[in-house]
Amino acid sequence: MTGEIIAVGTELLLGDILNTNAQYLSRQLAALGIGVYFQSVVGDNKDRLLNAFENAFKRADLVITTGGLGPTDDDLTKETGAEYFGLEMIEDKESMDNLRDYFKNNNMPETNLKQGYIPKGAKALKNNNGTAPGCIIEKDGKILVMLPGPPAETIPMFEESVIPILSKKQDKTFVSRILRLSGIGESAAAEAIRDIMKESENPTIAPYAKQDEMLFRITAGGNNKDEADKLINPVVKQIYKRLGQYIYGEGEDASLEKAVLNELEKRGLKIACAESCTGGELCARLVNCSGASNVLLEGVVSYSNESKISRLSVKEETLLKYGAVSAETAEEMAKGVSLNLKADIGISTTGVAGPLGGTEEKPVGLVYAAIYMNGKTNVYRYMIKGNRNKIRHRTVTNILNNLREMLIKDVSEK
Amino acid sequence: MTGEIIAVGTELLLGDILNTNAQYLSRQLAALGIGVYFQSVVGDNKDRLLNAFENAFKRADLVITTGGLGPTDDDLTKETGAEYFGLEMIEDKESMDNLRDYFKNNNMPETNLKQGYIPKGAKALKNNNGTAPGCIIEKDGKILVMLPGPPAETIPMFEESVIPILSKKQDKTFVSRILRLSGIGESAAAEAIRDIMKESENPTIAPYAKQDEMLFRITAGGNNKDEADKLINPVVKQIYKRLGQYIYGEGEDASLEKAVLNELEKRGLKIACAESCTGGELCARLVNCSGASNVLLEGVVSYSNESKISRLSVKEETLLKYGAVSAETAEEMAKGVSLNLKADIGISTTGVAGPLGGTEEKPVGLVYAAIYMNGKTNVYRYMIKGNRNKIRHRTVTNILNNLREMLIKDVSEK
Repeated sequence: MTGEIIAVGTELLLGDILNTNAQYLSRQLAALGIGVYFQSVVGDNKDRLLNAFENAFKRADLVITTGGLGPTDDDLTKETGAEYFGLEMIEDKESMDNLRDYFKNNNMPETNLKQGYIPKGAKALKNNNGTAPGCIIEKDGKILVMLPGPPAETIPMFEESVIPILSKKQDKTFVSRILRLSGIGESAAAEAIRDIMKESENPTIAPYAKQDEMLFRITAGGNNKDEADKLINPVVKQIYKRLGQYIYGEGEDASLEKAVLNELEKRGLKIACAESCTGGELCARLVNCSGASNVLLEGVVSYSNESKISRLSVKEETLLKYGAVSAETAEEMAKGVSLNLKADIGISTTGVAGPLGGTEEKPVGLVYAAIYMNGKTNVYRYMIKGNRNKIRHRTVTNILNNLREMLIKDVSEK
Repeated sequence: MTGEIIAVGTELLLGDILNTNAQYLSRQLAALGIGVYFQSVVGDNKDRLLNAFENAFKRADLVITTGGLGPTDDDLTKETGAEYFGLEMIEDKESMDNLRDYFKNNNMPETNLKQGYIPKGAKALKNNNGTAPGCIIEKDGKILVMLPGPPAETIPMFEESVIPILSKKQDKTFVSRILRLSGIGESAAAEAIRDIMKESENPTIAPYAKQDEMLFRITAGGNNKDEADKLINPVVKQIYKRLGQYIYGEGEDASLEKAVLNELEKRGLKIACAESCTGGELCARLVNCSGASNVLLEGVVSYSNESKISRLSVKEETLLKYGAVSAETAEEMAKGVSLNLKADIGISTTGVAGPLGGTEEKPVGLVYAAIYMNGKTNVYRYMIKGNRNKIRHRTVTNILNNLREMLIKDVSEK
């Protein structure tokens, strides 16, 4: 089955609100194995909506709309759906009772009465979180599902009333696994497994670039979850064999910072951070994972030379001779924060985040970062393109990934 | 002129990412006076994209695409745009030079070369934040603008290269002013100026809720900028009269942290931060503004009790008696960091960010924050609903706004 999503609402076309329903419904349909090849947004306008229905049903068997079920004259999705299928609007007793019940002692505005009507032959969908019931029309092999617009109503209605109906119509089960990679770009990663991607039809392998990382989504369809898993697993194994060192985690919830914290916690290692150009973002991203306190001793945002000297024991002559943005300063910062705070690992960042402060020798985007561990310091040099925010964010991602690789390597060498 | 937005990317159809570009571009087009009646999302598929172009150009003069300009075989927006207009792809020297420059000493994967090609007769748009240049095709009265997908690339490219071109084509000049408010919710702010909003037709006044802030966009159309400005100014003045204390800045680039840094710099005040639950985010948000070094002396991420005692001179008995999350600890942290680092102002945060660690007495979301200045400490108590990330982010916003209000009040009293 193929599906399309049409969001109805002028507020979406003006950019007043974000179309989160489309993302939610797309995910749900993907999980049900219903292919979505098109999403659209159209205003509260009968002719344009009719046109959208016509185009959508040319391409798809199932169309899901969100929005336009409210009580005002603007709200005309249901009426337009009825017109598209040549159905008249009739009162739905249960919906009308629910409406009266919803308003109970409050006076129901007259306009709300229209929410008690549905296209003849359609099935009303109860709204447990608002006044507008949804409905489903099934006719001539086509299905039109009309849901309310506010996500707090759309989502429960979809889960309570629509999933049970759609899943009965699907004979296949689809399973996805997501591999998350850091330290390698989309094109290089895709290049490394091009042959696997080409050969594999079920599962399919799709690469995506995200900010500072990339991921592969591997999706298989089978008669049941077991069968789909069995199709996916050998392919995932092949990918791990080639790109394992870059794969820091799996699934929607994985993050590089969580992966690093796990590796540290497994080894019982404590870290301390000395941040100059990243200004606290390294710590903040670690602390954003629950349980960071088991691993993170302290962070110092050492933005000035004075503070680098007093807190981190960076030598004044190092700053004078090499500058605050230098491999030498990064090295002393990492060592200093580790020794001063008695942490197993010290991490430092220092760089030119811009937009001002760049020189020919040290341009905006030049960053040094260092990791001190077991008496040794590794210094990294990054050249990052982009604005201040991107340079700082990418620096944190890079040094976290370097730390992750170092920890994993450290173990495998032993 | 009417415009349409087509987002290209299978990851959008799978619900892997949210289509924030559509919202951003819709707003921008509205501000330019370009009507948007349709948005759509289509996968990385030539035939379906061609079909989308055909439908869109039936309805609109301008089509803006996002995504599909990357280096992989999947990325085919530019090639499909060329095919739609019957143009061949040719090498664009400047784009190719920029690409080579981007990769410099790193090896450029062969596949990236395709990003240096554009449709013949098109104008390339430089990408200052990534590898994929955009481009504009103008032919037979139709305009196709193709932008990269990652918002960090889409938005700057649109603002730097596309707005200047589109605004020249509009006969009316639209001017928008954006007032940004902190410390007041959308409905309370809208309520406070409901009569002004109702009366005013040109300019229009639209309220938007954003994460942790709200804004009013005031838009007027006139024959030239001056005329539009003259329509806007008295309305803005009225809004300032009623809500001035909440308005921390104007425009897309304003931020609460910049506003705070400006107020501090004007007064020649230096600050130091002691962060527990926010874990560096307060510093990171300040440092994200260029020039933070003029104001920020140092930050301490003091996540453990030990560190609160040794670095911030919090008394052990305070921690024992009241706990780390308490008004008393927040107060001592702010005072300690200010005195220890010889800063004019010390700011502290300590709270239960969750998801674990909450008790009946101190539930998840309870945060204390403090500001020490001139020998006095103000302590604030927040109860914030939401996940760990939201609690920490909102804490930073709240304390920054409290500091801003304190600084402004301090001056007006003098």
